[in-house]
Amino acid sequence: ALVITLATILLIGVSALTVFWVFFYREGYAWADDIPEKQFNLHPTLMVAGFITFSGFSVLLYRICRCFRRIYVKLLHAIFHALAFPCIVIGFLAVLDYHNKKGINNFYSLHSWIGLVAMGLFGLQYAVGFFSFLLLLICNKGTAGFRASLVPVHAAFGVLTFVLGVAACLTGLTEKAIFTLGAERYSGLPDEGVIINAIGVASIAILAVVMYILSR
Amino acid sequence: ALVITLATILLIGVSALTVFWVFFYREGYAWADDIPEKQFNLHPTLMVAGFITFSGFSVLLYRICRCFRRIYVKLLHAIFHALAFPCIVIGFLAVLDYHNKKGINNFYSLHSWIGLVAMGLFGLQYAVGFFSFLLLLICNKGTAGFRASLVPVHAAFGVLTFVLGVAACLTGLTEKAIFTLGAERYSGLPDEGVIINAIGVASIAILAVVMYILSR
Ligand code: HEM
Ligand code: HEM
Ligand code: HEM
Ligand code: HEM
Ligand SMILES: O=C1O[C@H]([C@@H](O)CO)C(O)=C1O
Repeated sequence: ALVITLATILLIGVSALTVFWVFFYREGYAWADDIPEKQFNLHPTLMVAGFITFSGFSVLLYRICRCFRRIYVKLLHAIFHALAFPCIVIGFLAVLDYHNKKGINNFYSLHSWIGLVAMGLFGLQYAVGFFSFLLLLICNKGTAGFRASLVPVHAAFGVLTFVLGVAACLTGLTEKAIFTLGAERYSGLPDEGVIINAIGVASIAILAVVMYILSR
Repeated sequence: ALVITLATILLIGVSALTVFWVFFYREGYAWADDIPEKQFNLHPTLMVAGFITFSGFSVLLYRICRCFRRIYVKLLHAIFHALAFPCIVIGFLAVLDYHNKKGINNFYSLHSWIGLVAMGLFGLQYAVGFFSFLLLLICNKGTAGFRASLVPVHAAFGVLTFVLGVAACLTGLTEKAIFTLGAERYSGLPDEGVIINAIGVASIAILAVVMYILSR
């Protein structure tokens, strides 16, 4: 129970910290505005919300709501991932459009490669999960064996998706710190550098706590 | 068996690729030489060898050598981590001394924070593992219960150490790509950029394979 409280605080905290960072140091959000940097700001915010906050809660649901009826937990799990979905799509379009507006190449960085794999896995997990665990309930008896055998595969790929999401955040934060502060100022560790590093540390703490809860 | 072969190829491959990168694009290794950059090159090489190649093999040993006598596997596990140890220490001193020679601040980056936690956990795991699983064998019977109860804790923290090691590599590669190629050239994805990204992709593939093997 204590560790669930800790997880909740961290999951909400990491998104709150990201929003704080953008408003306090990066001038807030916008789209189709004169300042493309404000549009970029949607990218880290929505990606952290989708891949960490919403996905994290969704994955922990099965361990938090043990006394609920199974179908409710399953629907909640699907709903939380359904909330993560648009965050991830819009977060991706925000940076894609930002790159195109500024004439920067797409998909060159290790970060973007990790991000593409994470998003691909997320989409697959969603499609397969929705089809197999909800739609196939139409024929409850005939598909029970198949669904049961799919659970460990879905769980393993789900954890991998989460790990890749965290890895994308860590490399993205590192890029952003160097791009906007510059190597010189980042190495002096200004306040903004501490905040960016703290978002990364919170993401790692979440990964550790989620892995711990799932391993029980 | 197939997945063990894959793991072996990747674990050796990621270190080979790092050495290739340093010789082909980064002018090889040196210490106390006129060119501190050559000394820096020891850092990624030894960290990848210590935290990924040696640690990866060591962690997989319990699953590869199921037919060996238990004490031999345990000694091999300790020996592989003992090989990783000096790699990590020298790899750390190489970058610390490089920073001091060039007058760059220490421990400002998210990468270095992740790295410090990973190294701290590695040291703890080694000390606790050595004491509990080898030294306490002196009193085999009296400590069996304690040792058995420690195994899941040691395994969980061991996986966490491995995950943090991979996270440190990914953020380190991202920094290095931007520092040496520059944001401009990196975004054109030159050959060296592809190689650096490939080292990262290999690290992630290793993480996925190791997590998969340990979950069986
Ligand atoms: C799971 C989370 C994330 C995913 C899946 C992701 C995905 C991506 C992708 C696919 C791109 C390439 C876009 C293009 O080339 O047009 C990109 C770019 C970028 N992202 Fe993320 N991102 C994530 C989180 C973050 C975070 C938290 C930050 C922190 C600020 C960030 C910073 C950046 C930056 C600076 C770029 C532009 C440079 C580049 O292409 O590497 N990202 N991201
Ligand atoms: C991107 C989307 C998704 C991700 C990343 C994901 C991830 C996960 C993870 C990590 C687990 C393991 C949780 C545990 O061990 O307690 C899990 C379990 C499960 N998920 Fe998903 N999931 C996704 C979408 C869906 C959808 C759309 C459904 C459909 C309702 C679904 C149905 C299930 C079911 C039935 C389980 C098994 C729970 C159990 O019996 O322990 N998932 N998911
Ligand atoms: C598990 C592996 C790794 C660990 C534990 C680690 C740890 C560290 C630490 C603690 C520092 C700070 C040194 C100081 O401030 O004096 C550092 C710096 C650095 N490392 Fe790593 N490292 C790892 C892997 C890598 C890799 C694979 C690269 C890729 C080239 C890399 C690139 C760098 C760079 C460029 C710096 C200097 C900038 C900075 O301080 O962030 N590291 N590393
Ligand atoms: C930094 C050093 C170390 C790390 C990162 C580490 C990591 C791990 C991991 C991940 C496992 C779980 C493997 C599995 O699930 O099959 C494990 C198991 C184990 N380790 Fe270590 N280890 C370290 C040092 C040591 C040392 C020095 C010893 C002393 C001999 C030791 C003894 C053991 C034992 C007895 C097991 C239990 C294997 C079992 O019964 O399944 N470890 N270690
Ligand atoms: O839809 C589901 O399929 C499996 C299992 O119940 C099948 O027997 C599972 O855990 C679900 O929630």
